[in-house]
Amino acid sequence: MSQLYSRVALIGLGLIASSMALAIRRDGLAGEVVGTARSDETRRIAEEIGLCDRVVPTVAEAVAGADLVVLATPIGAMGAIAEEIAPHLAPGATVTDVGSVKRAVVEAVGPHIPAGVHFIPGHPLAGTEHSGPRSGFPELFDGRWCVLAPPEGTDPAAVDKLAALWRAMGSQVDLMDVARHDLVLAVTSHAPHLIAYTMVGVADDLRRVTDSEVVKYSAAGFRDFTRIAASDPTMWRDVFLTNKDATLEILGRFTEELFALQRAIRTGDGDHLHDYFTRTRAIRRGIIEAGQDTDAPDFGRAAARK
Amino acid sequence: MSQLYSRVALIGLGLIASSMALAIRRDGLAGEVVGTARSDETRRIAEEIGLCDRVVPTVAEAVAGADLVVLATPIGAMGAIAEEIAPHLAPGATVTDVGSVKRAVVEAVGPHIPAGVHFIPGHPLAGTEHSGPRSGFPELFDGRWCVLAPPEGTDPAAVDKLAALWRAMGSQVDLMDVARHDLVLAVTSHAPHLIAYTMVGVADDLRRVTDSEVVKYSAAGFRDFTRIAASDPTMWRDVFLTNKDATLEILGRFTEELFALQRAIRTGDGDHLHDYFTRTRAIRRGIIEAGQDTDAPDFGRAAARK
Repeated sequence: MSQLYSRVALIGLGLIASSMALAIRRDGLAGEVVGTARSDETRRIAEEIGLCDRVVPTVAEAVAGADLVVLATPIGAMGAIAEEIAPHLAPGATVTDVGSVKRAVVEAVGPHIPAGVHFIPGHPLAGTEHSGPRSGFPELFDGRWCVLAPPEGTDPAAVDKLAALWRAMGSQVDLMDVARHDLVLAVTSHAPHLIAYTMVGVADDLRRVTDSEVVKYSAAGFRDFTRIAASDPTMWRDVFLTNKDATLEILGRFTEELFALQRAIRTGDGDHLHDYFTRTRAIRRGIIEAGQDTDAPDFGRAAARK
Repeated sequence: MSQLYSRVALIGLGLIASSMALAIRRDGLAGEVVGTARSDETRRIAEEIGLCDRVVPTVAEAVAGADLVVLATPIGAMGAIAEEIAPHLAPGATVTDVGSVKRAVVEAVGPHIPAGVHFIPGHPLAGTEHSGPRSGFPELFDGRWCVLAPPEGTDPAAVDKLAALWRAMGSQVDLMDVARHDLVLAVTSHAPHLIAYTMVGVADDLRRVTDSEVVKYSAAGFRDFTRIAASDPTMWRDVFLTNKDATLEILGRFTEELFALQRAIRTGDGDHLHDYFTRTRAIRRGIIEAGQDTDAPDFGRAAARK
């Protein structure tokens, strides 16, 4: 694969940035990958495992001479970082991010981007329940979607180049406006995460059911919720605080529907339940056909992998 | 492994029974495995793939001469089957079941069991999102728990023998009373399934977000819900109708907690959210340590399996 950028600066070295570093360096997509992180410990680990070509202590040093700057911190930190790096950005550079919410990033980062620098918000829809610099792997983006949300009037050549980088790392790329992105993600990601967090919290609270019983019998469904609810707390706090309206709207719809199903249980309306469950089964088929999951019998996964 | 039963009768040939047939025959745990199912098509497939030693058209024929009878149909059908097989059960035989709810099975099946026949309700906590006679695999029970809920006064030798069969098929075995079982499963399985069904239904209903968007971007969390919500509709209808009280109690707690988190989002209480998400992350660790899941980064699974 040919080199797309001469120097990529990764700010924040968690799951996404460390996976990007590994994918970019595996395929020679950039001349140099420079990384930084706020925590001394994170930078030390990144050095130790050789994640980047260079690890530097400040964001100003990281962005100096970079033609691509990737903000890969929790969303709540991005505004202050943008302000700090602004005077150090190279003319013609592109600034992007990997945050799960887009409107809040545009509002926090956009005003700090100097003229002559391209700002192209992005969101790779990929992840695992792990976090930190050791959690990355270069195949993370394979077959996943990356959404780019360039503001009106952004230089098409800069967008094409960033899209080419994501494709080279294995992603498919979609363009979407920020409001649409935030609504779609509230449905496919933000509301499901809050629901999973809630269910796991309820199980933990119920003193009538001991922790060991919940853990022992988790394979019956609960286990998948714990996996989602193990995602990074800081990242998710910021997602909910910054995509408040869309998330609350979807949760409102969810509660309404849940009440209707609870009523069907209470009144013994088996037909309603059966029809509902038959319909949801069909959606699963669509996801498998679209290549976003496999058909392998995954509930039995630990056993099958022994 | 030595033979434990001379003839096992499997009534219903779905995921659980077909996995049992394969595990029993792989290890020679019974002299003969006889199967039956209500649907002609299911019996035909079972014949075609050689699932059992014999497939017979009626439950009466299936249980004749069997020293172990396994009810493996949806729970709603078990009472009528128990009534039908009662006159044909061999003296000294054991009748068990694999239903996800135990009190309802005891109430529906118990009264029909003749004197001299052992009745030991059971529940293997294992499954996948697939169903039907082709979905079974002999490793399904490996490392999973099977709960037995024998009524007071059940012959301990009969319980030990059934427990030995489950252990030989790979399970760990626990004894529990029926009320406790139904409460624990409401937390670890029944409420999570209803919640997953609801979230998938909401996504499908929302006309503001297209189905193709939901499917494309499902990898961000929603995908795990669709997997759970692809489980067998008839089985799950019966679970909710027969474990009504415990399920509604847990859903009530869930809704209360969800409202508290929604309020934290609305008021911008980031500390509350962060504390909650940190606590739920710890539960995940317990499940991995208990061997009920692996630590592999599973969100990225489709990619990693290419």
